[in-house]
Amino acid sequence: MAPIPHQLPDIDVRFKLGCSLAYQVKAPTTFIFNVEVAHLKSLSIASEILTFAPDIDRRVYVTPDMKNRYIGLNVVPGPLSLEYNAEVELTVHRADPATINETPVSELPLDILPFLLPSRFVSSDRLAAFAQAEFGHLPKGHRRVNDICTWINEHIAYQRGASDGETTAHETLLKRAGVCRDFAHLGTAFCRALGIPARFVSAYAYGLVPADFHAVFEAYLDGRWWLFDATRQAHLDGLVRIGVGRDAAEIAFCTPYGEMEPTDMQIRIERADGGPEPTERTVDAISTEEPAPHAGAV
Amino acid sequence: MAPIPHQLPDIDVRFKLGCSLAYQVKAPTTFIFNVEVAHLKSLSIASEILTFAPDIDRRVYVTPDMKNRYIGLNVVPGPLSLEYNAEVELTVHRADPATINETPVSELPLDILPFLLPSRFVSSDRLAAFAQAEFGHLPKGHRRVNDICTWINEHIAYQRGASDGETTAHETLLKRAGVCRDFAHLGTAFCRALGIPARFVSAYAYGLVPADFHAVFEAYLDGRWWLFDATRQAHLDGLVRIGVGRDAAEIAFCTPYGEMEPTDMQIRIERADGGPEPTERTVDAISTEEPAPHAGAV
Amino acid sequence: MAPIPHQLPDIDVRFKLGCSLAYQVKAPTTFIFNVEVAHLKSLSIASEILTFAPDIDRRVYVTPDMKNRYIGLNVVPGPLSLEYNAEVELTVHRADPATINETPVSELPLDILPFLLPSRFVSSDRLAAFAQAEFGHLPKGHRRVNDICTWINEHIAYQRGASDGETTAHETLLKRAGVCRDFAHLGTAFCRALGIPARFVSAYAYGLVPADFHAVFEAYLDGRWWLFDATRQAHLDGLVRIGVGRDAAEIAFCTPYGEMEPTDMQIRIERADGGPEPTERTVDAISTEEPAPHAGAV
Amino acid sequence: MAPIPHQLPDIDVRFKLGCSLAYQVKAPTTFIFNVEVAHLKSLSIASEILTFAPDIDRRVYVTPDMKNRYIGLNVVPGPLSLEYNAEVELTVHRADPATINETPVSELPLDILPFLLPSRFVSSDRLAAFAQAEFGHLPKGHRRVNDICTWINEHIAYQRGASDGETTAHETLLKRAGVCRDFAHLGTAFCRALGIPARFVSAYAYGLVPADFHAVFEAYLDGRWWLFDATRQAHLDGLVRIGVGRDAAEIAFCTPYGEMEPTDMQIRIERADGGPEPTERTVDAISTEEPAPHAGAV
Repeated sequence: MAPIPHQLPDIDVRFKLGCSLAYQVKAPTTFIFNVEVAHLKSLSIASEILTFAPDIDRRVYVTPDMKNRYIGLNVVPGPLSLEYNAEVELTVHRADPATINETPVSELPLDILPFLLPSRFVSSDRLAAFAQAEFGHLPKGHRRVNDICTWINEHIAYQRGASDGETTAHETLLKRAGVCRDFAHLGTAFCRALGIPARFVSAYAYGLVPADFHAVFEAYLDGRWWLFDATRQAHLDGLVRIGVGRDAAEIAFCTPYGEMEPTDMQIRIERADGGPEPTERTVDAISTEEPAPHAGAV
Repeated sequence: MAPIPHQLPDIDVRFKLGCSLAYQVKAPTTFIFNVEVAHLKSLSIASEILTFAPDIDRRVYVTPDMKNRYIGLNVVPGPLSLEYNAEVELTVHRADPATINETPVSELPLDILPFLLPSRFVSSDRLAAFAQAEFGHLPKGHRRVNDICTWINEHIAYQRGASDGETTAHETLLKRAGVCRDFAHLGTAFCRALGIPARFVSAYAYGLVPADFHAVFEAYLDGRWWLFDATRQAHLDGLVRIGVGRDAAEIAFCTPYGEMEPTDMQIRIERADGGPEPTERTVDAISTEEPAPHAGAV
Repeated sequence: MAPIPHQLPDIDVRFKLGCSLAYQVKAPTTFIFNVEVAHLKSLSIASEILTFAPDIDRRVYVTPDMKNRYIGLNVVPGPLSLEYNAEVELTVHRADPATINETPVSELPLDILPFLLPSRFVSSDRLAAFAQAEFGHLPKGHRRVNDICTWINEHIAYQRGASDGETTAHETLLKRAGVCRDFAHLGTAFCRALGIPARFVSAYAYGLVPADFHAVFEAYLDGRWWLFDATRQAHLDGLVRIGVGRDAAEIAFCTPYGEMEPTDMQIRIERADGGPEPTERTVDAISTEEPAPHAGAV
Repeated sequence: MAPIPHQLPDIDVRFKLGCSLAYQVKAPTTFIFNVEVAHLKSLSIASEILTFAPDIDRRVYVTPDMKNRYIGLNVVPGPLSLEYNAEVELTVHRADPATINETPVSELPLDILPFLLPSRFVSSDRLAAFAQAEFGHLPKGHRRVNDICTWINEHIAYQRGASDGETTAHETLLKRAGVCRDFAHLGTAFCRALGIPARFVSAYAYGLVPADFHAVFEAYLDGRWWLFDATRQAHLDGLVRIGVGRDAAEIAFCTPYGEMEPTDMQIRIERADGGPEPTERTVDAISTEEPAPHAGAV
């Protein structure tokens, strides 16, 4: 196994965050929401409240692997609103990027390998030759994934309306435009195409203007998952994870089965510890999650 | 919750099965094999042996949710062969298809909902209107999924070479041709598009001529997963599961990272209990797995 | 050569028609308009006037083969409006559909063969198997193309916003929805896939509600081009041709190179001869053009 | 109108060229061949003979605009062979590339504009943003199209089997591999996306190893069509045109309607005037056709 990356001191940051969502339901609709922060050791929830109006019975589900939290509601026609507020303390694990290496496929834990496979919006198989040609020759490690982000940032225009809910990574590459979801899908796709496990992350993002649910991605390097933001719009040390999955399909903040229209949507996050305003993007490598246990692998 | 389907007596069948695979490895290659039968309560393994020549260290991994069994090998250039033989007893759960209903999305367990999402080869989102137009008006339940299989069988030609490893369900629909993998992807896609959870299954298939790894699918109805074979080529009560997943990407029998060429491949399955040769396709509804526990959902 | 279809008496109809278009030009823009009625022997232009405000120099071009009429304008920023009015007499050639046969490829004039080839929006090559499976076994002739139109009408929903300017025939088939342009592309694609030359037609359409530029298609049968409208929304004997081409790309009513926004668009057509209001769709086979000369073929 | 590019002295070259094709016809098949050199003023045919065995009646067609020559044959089952031999004198028009400018869309003759439109294999509309981002800022003129060729040559691998008859330009861009047909489609697509008219050309190519039908493209600059070869495998001054069209669909050397298998194919071209063997690729700008007359445009 490769030597452990050179750790930097952890940073503890406290945030107040939340969202307010509203819908007009037109026919009986089952909503699945994924807006609560994930259950992670590195993310301590000081307080948290999630309310619906009207106050409908809810079902809850936490995925055993990822600790994503889903809420299911069956809603009759009429207005529905959701209000979520939390105060959390995030422990940011950092390391010197120059010391973080790629893990050869031959050494990857078997339970990590699914994150090399293509998924609905991460068409890594169709991008294999492209990824190899553009990035195959670059120095390996955290820097290579960072180079991928730089490439995406320079070649893809951030443009609202350039994509929709069916847009796949290779289409974003052709259109040369997209939103954070598309940037994250493309970064994930390039990594998988190069043999680097990668997955899609939704988060509250401190410093993102305007405030919104953000999409970034994680690459598996040297035994941990490391955060990357190909949009370069948020602070890596200000990302509070909501969900993680193969791609956006799995962790949409709202998956409705029925008929409804969104009428309002507000997302917020601010420092709760009097810490300084963000001034610039961190260059450290950031990992917000403990190493995976790989319990199943021998 | 809907009433339980009318159960028919279980059938116990004993099979001898296995496979012989051979490769010429050209550069160091990591192989992931998924050829062993799954660990299921309804599938008792009397004996089992898996050998490699040369005899290389293997890593094993069983997925906690699906009980798929993966073997990882790091292989140097040269020949590699795999030999797998098992004797298993399969308990076939049956029910009267006419008594098996669909479960409305509002009543689906939350841990089943991911099987409504599109995946790499199951482009259910792009097929939503097509599925609704062709099957939306049909009587719901086990019979509707069976009608979908009939439709696929009548509209898609079984044709080797019509597809490749990147073929997606909507492309199969346009090409009107494919192999078992494509039939299963399309059936899975139509189900998901209609709000019926569905997943992809690989299996040893008694009665399949010529013998081969087979691909079928399962739909979630009335609290259980039920088997369907849109190719109509195998016996539902002779399917011994290897793996189950979102689509073929997750449960390929061999996923190689490196450079190699397959040189031989033989699959076999026969009755081990002196039972009769298969004569016709069963019309019962078959479920090879115990009901899912939904432990995480409240 | 097959016997000539049984001709029915010609019908002469006189129409007043035209359009008013307005744009806000934001940067210097070259406009190509194709809104004037085509120069055909069967279409006599009694009077015609096309004006622009401001009154800009125009270039005109009539395609030697199709007699499509294009107007080119180089426009500076500011408003631009186009006003077109014409009175025309259309001679409608009719025949008994039951007597119109397909022409085998072996007997097609060589200058007709390009209309068997796929084009940008008419992906007949990708639809070959689908077309063969759905329509390959049907009785040949005018009735088969009519059956194709019926199939499209029953399987594709007419739905504004379901498509955009990049939508290709096979995508319409998957989406099961489109507008007249998409219906015409799909009909054209199915015909070409079956060995029936077909082309895309834009027209003023008497009886279309609401009035709009209409898109239909023509199939080449028994030595003539015959009109078909898969939307079933217009009267075949009330179609006044503007342009004809491989697909919509060639005969857009407005092709702008620059930056502009449409601000108004009105299309009109009415009987000018006191003839009756249209009451029902004709069932005759309609050909609005004289037989092609095939001068180049020997 | 822009000033005429600085002409260099014409070069006259004499070639012997031809092809031998053989097929096994399995069911009655209509063949359309396009293998004879085009009828151009700059291409003088000293002698020419085209024979078929068996000696079947042929139909001939020369397109009025492009002077492409098509041969149609209706063939019964059995072997078919084609033998074509010609001696031609090619007058190569040359100019100093640095003096060749692009023509703004506002000044393009209207009959040239169709070559800005997307076609089946030239998906210029889908590549618009990509082309603009990569090439939009480059100095305009012959050099820009040359830069496009260089880019393609550096980014796309020449690889047999990487594409098939349905491969479209944007797919080649993603796959990063193709053959001469794909290189030419991609060059054509980038040009059209940038407002430069472009078209697809098939040719006998002196210096191409191994000898084969070659595909290149032409861009319309400063009032003429100029040749470009993105594969950089042939000599621009050794290209003898067979056909020209929107894309490969229009000028396939063999378009069969029926059932057959190719059994042999040989292409040949050599100097017939004792001139020197080709030593290196010319850097001049080459135009093999007289300026278009634009007779229809006013």
